[in-house]
Amino acid sequence: MGVGAGATARLLIEYDGTDFSGWARQPEKRTVQAEVERALGIVLRRETVALTVAGRTDAGVHARGQVASYSGEPARSDALNALLPADVAVLECEAAAPGFDARRDATSRAYCYRVLTRRARSPHERRLALHWPHRPDVAVLERCAALLPGPHDFTAFTPTETGHRRFSRDIVCAYWRERDGGRLEFWIEADAFMRSMIRVLVGTMLEAAGGRRSVDEFGRLLDGRPRSAAGRTAPPHGLHLIGAGYGGGRLLGDGRDAHFPG
Amino acid sequence: MGVGAGATARLLIEYDGTDFSGWARQPEKRTVQAEVERALGIVLRRETVALTVAGRTDAGVHARGQVASYSGEPARSDALNALLPADVAVLECEAAAPGFDARRDATSRAYCYRVLTRRARSPHERRLALHWPHRPDVAVLERCAALLPGPHDFTAFTPTETGHRRFSRDIVCAYWRERDGGRLEFWIEADAFMRSMIRVLVGTMLEAAGGRRSVDEFGRLLDGRPRSAAGRTAPPHGLHLIGAGYGGGRLLGDGRDAHFPG
Repeated sequence: MGVGAGATARLLIEYDGTDFSGWARQPEKRTVQAEVERALGIVLRRETVALTVAGRTDAGVHARGQVASYSGEPARSDALNALLPADVAVLECEAAAPGFDARRDATSRAYCYRVLTRRARSPHERRLALHWPHRPDVAVLERCAALLPGPHDFTAFTPTETGHRRFSRDIVCAYWRERDGGRLEFWIEADAFMRSMIRVLVGTMLEAAGGRRSVDEFGRLLDGRPRSAAGRTAPPHGLHLIGAGYGGGRLLGDGRDAHFPG
Repeated sequence: MGVGAGATARLLIEYDGTDFSGWARQPEKRTVQAEVERALGIVLRRETVALTVAGRTDAGVHARGQVASYSGEPARSDALNALLPADVAVLECEAAAPGFDARRDATSRAYCYRVLTRRARSPHERRLALHWPHRPDVAVLERCAALLPGPHDFTAFTPTETGHRRFSRDIVCAYWRERDGGRLEFWIEADAFMRSMIRVLVGTMLEAAGGRRSVDEFGRLLDGRPRSAAGRTAPPHGLHLIGAGYGGGRLLGDGRDAHFPG
């Protein structure tokens, strides 16, 4: 069972983040990384398998198309799924170019944040969407999102205490989409995201859409303001990692809905 | 808090059927009916509230737009939802025409059965769709569904031991719809359904679509054959009650996707 020199494998992973303490391995916590590394170790008969990942999702955040990589031969995804718990599944496990690194090589990450804007809460959406009982002004949401593409300083959109040293991120595209049944989705793709960044963006845009700040005020937050200037952090359960880009204009993800215009 | 003579209220209810022993009240079991009647009793300050319902769903079956009724004044849905557990919610509670009966007055019921036809199971769909790891022949599914509209004898599609005395049901429409990501949906509306009927229809159509019986054989089952002539019962967790019709060509339901052609 020798590991080929330089052989690298790439995983595409879906998970329901509800009962996980996020992606990243932590002592005594139930994490996606620990579950997948454990299953890989069994199937590949290795003591340890170390995964790198495109998007280190926080506790409660979901993934439709998380991309991870490790040094070694690919494993059979059916064998992995038989060992994994019901809330995580490997959609693909394939050989990648030698030295491929899911984190370092990713040129973009794409997320979707779901909001249910109707009066009654939804039993079916309760783990997947923020329940927002008042109808936001969708035109305001769209005007806020339209300010996002391009490079900006997102200092206002991440907790003050983080390990980030660089606060500029380049947004590839961002827009709101209306679905039926009062469902709204915020789609965003960027080179990278800081901790909680999308959740603070969504929380702040919803405040603007409720009339509690203007679109201009929202726009000024993109020039590097303190965290206190932005709005609340939306809860994690509305956030879904859709996929990651590795050049070539295509997202690696579940394919479904991963259509970013322009 | 007197109950107006003849006053009748109509409820629209959504629930995640995963952890319920179905709609109908049963001793010692957790049922949707018992939860909603309990909440209504508290809000209306009545000893008992007796609900009638458009579709008596089995254990594990979901509802997007279950319609129920009771004698009395409507209650505030926000107050009900504050008392109900997370997996059931009242979308509407309104005054209905005096004597309205959600079961007796319903002219049709509409259901959707979801199938995920991809190799890997899905953490996000695990409670909502049947996982079918092989790709069925969708053209065969569509040909089977096209045989369904009209009145037929569905004896083959319900358990031998039931309380049904009449085995003819009139299908208003039935069709399969393809969604992205390998998702298939079977939509069906009829005057009424017998126990397990849609689940046996789906299980039998999937057998035909896998080449295990012909479309003609499927069609002959609609003339009143024994249960043993039809296929397996598909599991309950893929089935969703969408809404009910009360004349006028419109379904009472969550509105989303409830578009039946013809």
